[in-house]
Amino acid sequence: MITSLSNPRVKQVVQWQSKARERKKDGIFLVEGIKMYEEAPESSIKETYILEETLEKCKGTAVFEKLGRTGYETVAKDVFLKMSDTQTPQGILCVVKRPQFDLEMLLQAESPLFVILEDLQDPGNLGTIVRTGEGAGVTAVLMSKNTVDIYNPKTIRATMGSIYRVPHIYIEDMGELLEKLHNIGVKTYAAHLQGENYYDSFSFTAPTAFLIGNEGNGLKKETADMAKHYLKIPMEGQVESLNAAIATSLLMYETHRQRSIK
Amino acid sequence: MITSLSNPRVKQVVQWQSKARERKKDGIFLVEGIKMYEEAPESSIKETYILEETLEKCKGTAVFEKLGRTGYETVAKDVFLKMSDTQTPQGILCVVKRPQFDLEMLLQAESPLFVILEDLQDPGNLGTIVRTGEGAGVTAVLMSKNTVDIYNPKTIRATMGSIYRVPHIYIEDMGELLEKLHNIGVKTYAAHLQGENYYDSFSFTAPTAFLIGNEGNGLKKETADMAKHYLKIPMEGQVESLNAAIATSLLMYETHRQRSIK
Repeated sequence: MITSLSNPRVKQVVQWQSKARERKKDGIFLVEGIKMYEEAPESSIKETYILEETLEKCKGTAVFEKLGRTGYETVAKDVFLKMSDTQTPQGILCVVKRPQFDLEMLLQAESPLFVILEDLQDPGNLGTIVRTGEGAGVTAVLMSKNTVDIYNPKTIRATMGSIYRVPHIYIEDMGELLEKLHNIGVKTYAAHLQGENYYDSFSFTAPTAFLIGNEGNGLKKETADMAKHYLKIPMEGQVESLNAAIATSLLMYETHRQRSIK
Repeated sequence: MITSLSNPRVKQVVQWQSKARERKKDGIFLVEGIKMYEEAPESSIKETYILEETLEKCKGTAVFEKLGRTGYETVAKDVFLKMSDTQTPQGILCVVKRPQFDLEMLLQAESPLFVILEDLQDPGNLGTIVRTGEGAGVTAVLMSKNTVDIYNPKTIRATMGSIYRVPHIYIEDMGELLEKLHNIGVKTYAAHLQGENYYDSFSFTAPTAFLIGNEGNGLKKETADMAKHYLKIPMEGQVESLNAAIATSLLMYETHRQRSIK
């Protein structure tokens, strides 16, 4: 059992919690809670830290068997509180290897639906988009390199486990990505307040990609200009814009709706 | 200029920031930032606190003229930081009188769309629902009495000003409310994982009310049972549920979409 706050593994976890750069360098992310441990691909679990009392509670469950296979380290309560990112930790924290996704392979998906995020800054919004994206059946979430870290603990929490299942890639060059998409016949739509047509006037049954901009500023002009179409979401009253996760979800589910009509 | 942290008005604002009960007793809520001040109904503004530097920046604008009409008090920086709920305050804070809405009048709206929230707990979710609700054209947001305080500073921020424009009422008795709605011919739909039909298979062109439950537990059985229909949102992959604000938004905008088709 780890009981010392100055244990090097504890220090390492604390650093991973707070520094995106460190997480990236080591190719890992952190997840907390029973559900997130349960859903983590077994082969990706590198380290698991658990409170004695949490371990006790798991006895006789599938989680306990999984712990036996992945291995784990028990940790004293004060040490766990230091390692955890949450206010009321569930007593299990896990270091997970980052998945690698191949853009070229994703581009070959049948009837793909891509969500492309440019410089999104809110971790909760990003996580919610990943979660809703799995629900709506997106092929992948593609992000500009200045988008908030998808392995931010807040984002991970908001994905509710979808982080393990929705392919996601940071893209170096948005122009190059859009060119690739256009070359294989994907229709690209920029969500834009200056859109001339409402989103529900388009057909998204063909291969589709939605471009969503930063919360405060929307899409960069040069990015929006590259998209084949502008679209907007109708807004009553004096609403100037919708939350980025809401807008993205409406587009993803409108696509799902159209594609489900027999 | 208020320069003392022990000024009674400062103490009062600090109390309002942290205590829902105090805000309720005094029939007010607090808003921060230029945009929120700008959009606040002039007759509802009771007190305004502003930094000298913020006041300077406003000179020559409509906001400065409004300040002249509503009156204001300048506040020293350290005092403002204490009064503010935000990490990087915009330098203007305003005490606003709560609006009063009349359920009976709202029930007489033509083609109404009601959103009924039962015990929602996340302030950000509630605020986002109010914001998206204005965009989708809801008649009112009705909340069970154990729903999070709509005048919570986090909720207010997430509404992005829609709090001033979307009618909202806390409801004592959900059963009574549903009975009233049924009596005037409003169709009630419980968003429920056990729903037999997908949301997009219903027509929401008639008077409609959606019932949305708590983030973790969904609707109470007795509430869901009272609704005329259950509906569910399709979910691919292993997603167990959607975020409450996302689910509500999909329903509100599906209604908007259906009602906009000529």
